[in-house]
Amino acid sequence: MADLLEILTSAGINLATALGFLVAFALLRLQPINDRVYFPKWYRKGIRGSPTSSGTFVKRFVNLDAMTYIKFLNWMPAALRMPEPELIDHAGLDSAAYIRIYVLGLKIFFPITVLSLAVLIPLNYTNDTLEKSKEVEYSDIDKISISNVPTASLKKCDDHTFQIWKFCLSSRFIGHLILSYVFSIWTCFVLYHEYKTVATKRLQFLASQKRRPDQFSVLVRNVPPDPDESVSEHIEHFFCVNHPNDYLTHQVVYNTNKLAKLVAQKKSLKNRFVYYQNKYERNPEKSRPTTKTGFLGLLGDKVDAIDYYTTEIEKLSEEKKERERVASDPEAIMPAAFVSFKSRWGAAVCAQTQQSSNATIWLTEWAPEPRDIYWRNLSIPYVELNVRKLLMAVAFFVLISFFMIPIAFVQTLANIDNLKKALPFLKPIIEKCQVKSVIQGFLPGIALKIFLAILPMILMLMSKIEGYTSLSSLDRRSAAKYYLFILINMFLGNIVAGTAFEQLEEFTSQASSEYLKTIGRTMPMKGTFFITYIMVDGWSGIAAEIIRLVPLALYHFKNTFLVKTEQDREEAMNPGSLAFATNEPRIQFYMLLGLVYSVVTPLLLPFILIFFAFAYVVFRHQIINVYDQKYESGAAFWPRVHMRVIIGLIVSQVLVIGLFSTLDVHYSTYILIPQPILTFWFYRVCKGRFEPAFVTFPLQDAMVKDTVERATEPTLNLLAYLKDAYVHPDFKGGEMYKPEAIDEEERNPLVPTKRTSQMASQTGSKHESEGSEGPFLKS
Amino acid sequence: MADLLEILTSAGINLATALGFLVAFALLRLQPINDRVYFPKWYRKGIRGSPTSSGTFVKRFVNLDAMTYIKFLNWMPAALRMPEPELIDHAGLDSAAYIRIYVLGLKIFFPITVLSLAVLIPLNYTNDTLEKSKEVEYSDIDKISISNVPTASLKKCDDHTFQIWKFCLSSRFIGHLILSYVFSIWTCFVLYHEYKTVATKRLQFLASQKRRPDQFSVLVRNVPPDPDESVSEHIEHFFCVNHPNDYLTHQVVYNTNKLAKLVAQKKSLKNRFVYYQNKYERNPEKSRPTTKTGFLGLLGDKVDAIDYYTTEIEKLSEEKKERERVASDPEAIMPAAFVSFKSRWGAAVCAQTQQSSNATIWLTEWAPEPRDIYWRNLSIPYVELNVRKLLMAVAFFVLISFFMIPIAFVQTLANIDNLKKALPFLKPIIEKCQVKSVIQGFLPGIALKIFLAILPMILMLMSKIEGYTSLSSLDRRSAAKYYLFILINMFLGNIVAGTAFEQLEEFTSQASSEYLKTIGRTMPMKGTFFITYIMVDGWSGIAAEIIRLVPLALYHFKNTFLVKTEQDREEAMNPGSLAFATNEPRIQFYMLLGLVYSVVTPLLLPFILIFFAFAYVVFRHQIINVYDQKYESGAAFWPRVHMRVIIGLIVSQVLVIGLFSTLDVHYSTYILIPQPILTFWFYRVCKGRFEPAFVTFPLQDAMVKDTVERATEPTLNLLAYLKDAYVHPDFKGGEMYKPEAIDEEERNPLVPTKRTSQMASQTGSKHESEGSEGPFLKS
Repeated sequence: MADLLEILTSAGINLATALGFLVAFALLRLQPINDRVYFPKWYRKGIRGSPTSSGTFVKRFVNLDAMTYIKFLNWMPAALRMPEPELIDHAGLDSAAYIRIYVLGLKIFFPITVLSLAVLIPLNYTNDTLEKSKEVEYSDIDKISISNVPTASLKKCDDHTFQIWKFCLSSRFIGHLILSYVFSIWTCFVLYHEYKTVATKRLQFLASQKRRPDQFSVLVRNVPPDPDESVSEHIEHFFCVNHPNDYLTHQVVYNTNKLAKLVAQKKSLKNRFVYYQNKYERNPEKSRPTTKTGFLGLLGDKVDAIDYYTTEIEKLSEEKKERERVASDPEAIMPAAFVSFKSRWGAAVCAQTQQSSNATIWLTEWAPEPRDIYWRNLSIPYVELNVRKLLMAVAFFVLISFFMIPIAFVQTLANIDNLKKALPFLKPIIEKCQVKSVIQGFLPGIALKIFLAILPMILMLMSKIEGYTSLSSLDRRSAAKYYLFILINMFLGNIVAGTAFEQLEEFTSQASSEYLKTIGRTMPMKGTFFITYIMVDGWSGIAAEIIRLVPLALYHFKNTFLVKTEQDREEAMNPGSLAFATNEPRIQFYMLLGLVYSVVTPLLLPFILIFFAFAYVVFRHQIINVYDQKYESGAAFWPRVHMRVIIGLIVSQVLVIGLFSTLDVHYSTYILIPQPILTFWFYRVCKGRFEPAFVTFPLQDAMVKDTVERATEPTLNLLAYLKDAYVHPDFKGGEMYKPEAIDEEERNPLVPTKRTSQMASQTGSKHESEGSEGPFLKS
Repeated sequence: MADLLEILTSAGINLATALGFLVAFALLRLQPINDRVYFPKWYRKGIRGSPTSSGTFVKRFVNLDAMTYIKFLNWMPAALRMPEPELIDHAGLDSAAYIRIYVLGLKIFFPITVLSLAVLIPLNYTNDTLEKSKEVEYSDIDKISISNVPTASLKKCDDHTFQIWKFCLSSRFIGHLILSYVFSIWTCFVLYHEYKTVATKRLQFLASQKRRPDQFSVLVRNVPPDPDESVSEHIEHFFCVNHPNDYLTHQVVYNTNKLAKLVAQKKSLKNRFVYYQNKYERNPEKSRPTTKTGFLGLLGDKVDAIDYYTTEIEKLSEEKKERERVASDPEAIMPAAFVSFKSRWGAAVCAQTQQSSNATIWLTEWAPEPRDIYWRNLSIPYVELNVRKLLMAVAFFVLISFFMIPIAFVQTLANIDNLKKALPFLKPIIEKCQVKSVIQGFLPGIALKIFLAILPMILMLMSKIEGYTSLSSLDRRSAAKYYLFILINMFLGNIVAGTAFEQLEEFTSQASSEYLKTIGRTMPMKGTFFITYIMVDGWSGIAAEIIRLVPLALYHFKNTFLVKTEQDREEAMNPGSLAFATNEPRIQFYMLLGLVYSVVTPLLLPFILIFFAFAYVVFRHQIINVYDQKYESGAAFWPRVHMRVIIGLIVSQVLVIGLFSTLDVHYSTYILIPQPILTFWFYRVCKGRFEPAFVTFPLQDAMVKDTVERATEPTLNLLAYLKDAYVHPDFKGGEMYKPEAIDEEERNPLVPTKRTSQMASQTGSKHESEGSEGPFLKS
């Protein structure tokens, strides 16, 4: 009984923790002072005004309205109330599709949980295998798990068919076998349906989108060098010849590393200048503000701040020179370009076709939206790209295999005795009892925790080295790596024990059927461990997500000490975005756990279900009120999500085979083997059916949009619209990161003259966009 | 010593056999009576006249010129003399590229053989491991194989680095390790170079091709049903809207199963009619020829032959009706079509892009040339296609796993005692001593031989069920299946023993490292077996190929008994074609053997080398003089050839790892593991670099050809040219199978009127093409 009680206690504690977080959040979010932390999205959109600038002094910081406290949990229905189309309008399809991953989890696991609890628990509980076998220690959880079902001790006889029938009639395992199939079929059904829905939504989203530069543009890479022409001329000639009816214009990519540094420097100086000027203007009777020229304004000579920054900014006019140099220097032009077409149809054709018979040059792909571009990777040659991928594959294998070595090394260093040796002056402190226990209890774990915290960053860095050209693809790649890490080190690592390399060694030194049996044997035992994991990592993680402790602290810290101008405050707000590369693999881990344990330890399922429901509400709230997505890919990640759920499903099916092979119910293996094969086939069918909708822009849809546009806006000057859409942000003075920066081009009445001089003259020009909504919202 | 002697004897016998075949061929080919068997290609081209129709009676059948007999082997230099560009002109790129597979083999294995014999044989021979170990029986071949090298018996010590160095310095295996890398690098180098050459040749070939309908056409499948429009109208509207500048015309696909039967029947009747008419006209003084109405003209009433066939042919005017019915019946129209465009550019765009957002409808692909189409598979729905592929994958697994079961069953039946029981009246014959030994010696093997002979047909049938739409892709798919069969059942099956399923069972019940060791241990022992196999199957097979025993016998049989008209004789000629689906996997098997044994048993290499050299000469001769290819795919199979050599290379590298892991030279495994990984990476790089050239039609090349054509033939009526290019052959009276049938359309002055009536009126119309060369030859 103790075991079940333990779980329940643990559940109680975790629920209380989560509830505590929720209450804290409910109270904090009502305080006006935290408004920018909990509702930054509305600020970014310009809909919400700053509450700190109105009302009495106290009211600015603390909410005194009692009514709002009574209804402190009403953010939950509020989060759920917004209908999906509006959500897509408000937060983009990426966010809405991300939320659907949780819905997918709920849809998959709700019926499975009900069925599993209703059928398997009685089936398992009404046996007495564990009671009979005296020497085995067992808990309540084991009693309702598959371990309690007696293995059908069939006599070996030659009549195989008879044996199968006997097995079917006599054994209770047939229930588990049937349910395993039922669960797989249900999961596939939901997956198919969800894939279809998301694909439809994506197509609707793309169809209803306003005009966007990326619809007309194609990213061309690996432009071959030409002895007689500049890169720009070469591109123009090539596309004029090979897409004569559709080619409109192009924008070469510049190497702007030096310029980027200057731009950042200038921005910082300008910001300080504005700060001191504001300060002076507010209190002109006071003496002019001063600053120090040294490190962070803390050291060095004291000078007049306004004058100092004015001259410093003027000095940086070399930035303009650098800009001109880059624009005119052929060495700074990289062999890549954004080529724009007269119609979406033309762009779709160019993106999907092969241009040259040499498949390593003139590589075209659908251009990412301007915000989504990862500029540094645009000009990697073909062979180098392949070498980078190979190296990163090897590096990733080394990482998942040997990541424990440096951690173990740090842990040895963090050992009390070693610490005493290395830093003898700490001896008296360390030897105090409480400190000692803290060090012994926490320090060894901290190295691992830190590693796991920086792991997503390492993986992102690896993806960047691999050479992907858009932030969205970088996110997707990092997510794939992280999922593999979780699957191997957190899932299999916990079941089989050991890192990837140790597992591999064990796998090669054992017969694969034996290996499968080992996993099958340990899997049910780990059920309770994973239940605890779900509560500690899942539930508490979600609760911590909504309270935004780090951004809250950072905002208040920055607001108090660093914020100098209104722009600074805007930036201190830091709404963050959905960390797809980190969050999605974690969700997939819970999916995997649910699928694996659905037949083995049904008790785990309700915990998964609570996780999905809770996470759904919380993330829906965050998406509506907080996150500000850096890009909009139109749910381009869904094929990966689908694939990873299928991987989880296949892993679970293989592990169930392993489990049954330990139970001496031989024929079950043959009954279960078709499952992973059929699932893989299902994956292939879905891939063929839906994936193209996420990769290509179908000509029919492109043509429809072109035709409609031609009818509604016959006088549109597309050249002006596209001219500078893909100019490197640094040429625009670093304003590209704001969503407005894209749409503003639309009303930019540029006269198309010589490109280079134009670009230089464009510097710093900024037009207020008419509406305040992002360019990715339905008009 | 016995073993080497045995091999040499066997080699002598096989060489003598092969030489016998060659002499027989040299004599037979000089006889005018066999001219149509050994030079059919020239007849088909119309360049060679029938020698039987001139000269004296004896000279018609036997060559009496003594000089030709003296130079009886001069076909060999003649075969080698034709330069490659001319060969491509003469026989097409498919044949020329096929020949290059042998060249590839020679290029890979000649340096490897030299190096291996020069380095490894001394290295192996100068040891005395086998002499020392008294209990082991060994042969001369083993003495020069890797088995004779002493295993470095290193003391286990903790200093790993030191151990590696000690191993490097002390062991002779370092020679084998280095050579393994050298051979792999050399193979990859040659593969890369060959891939590049073939890709260049393909592009040149495509660029220099005359105008062909498939350059302008796209095969569209899965046209969705439309309630308001016919399939034809729907297609026309869809492409008019979505490819407005490029769409020209289209040709729907009809279901013509019934019509095909009628056409075949009519053709046979017409042939007989011509025969009897000729017979009567030659001897008009004789009575009119008679025939019998029953089975094969042997039974039934005796009637006047000419009258009888005239009325029978008239009766079959229902064929015309059926043709009209099919053309007008909307039920007979299948949801597939060949859509033609105004330019190659337009067709290339349509073939490479996705048309609809639903990826299961409006599927477009580059149209195969008209001869290459496999009409029956054009209208398989998307899901059915997937189900078929799944079923065939399972069926193929069953086939390679359990093919021995029915054969063993037949073998049991063929057992003498069982035969006596089943057919007691044969008892006296069977019990005769010679007959008995023949039955015991041959019958058990015959079932397996028959199975292996019909295996390619089974595999082709499976590929057809999978739903591929062109003969060339069917050939490629069958070749892939056959290669897998050979790899698993003939190669691994001989090393590990057992069918795929038994191997799989062994693999799962053993640790994979153990499994690898088992293979590594048995591999060197099988060297002599494979040497014999190369001689018996390879050398003799090639020699049998050139003598064309079966076509020779069939031709003379048909010529004597069945040939009634000149057209019959044409057909009896049966030049055959390169059986790519059967021959290519066999070549790959020899490649695999060469690569695997290059380090292990270098003595095998010269035998491989002789095979490749001999096969090269023979197939070059056959391609020049005999084969008449059914289609021309422009070496589209080369990526598969490349891939399979890489598979062979990786298999050999893994087996070498297995071999070394048995030799207690532990660190060798770690040295060798990067090999397969790097090879796989090399494969990926090559695939990305060259494969697109074999799959797509680059826009640049399409545009060049379009522009040239527009300049040289501004008045070309493309619509007339393309109108009937993709009409089902049965609508043309079954003449499509002749190469002329394609080009004749070019000068067909059709007035574009209503399609259906036109097609009916086209029946049987035939125009002589100007030149006699096929449409696939360079002009």
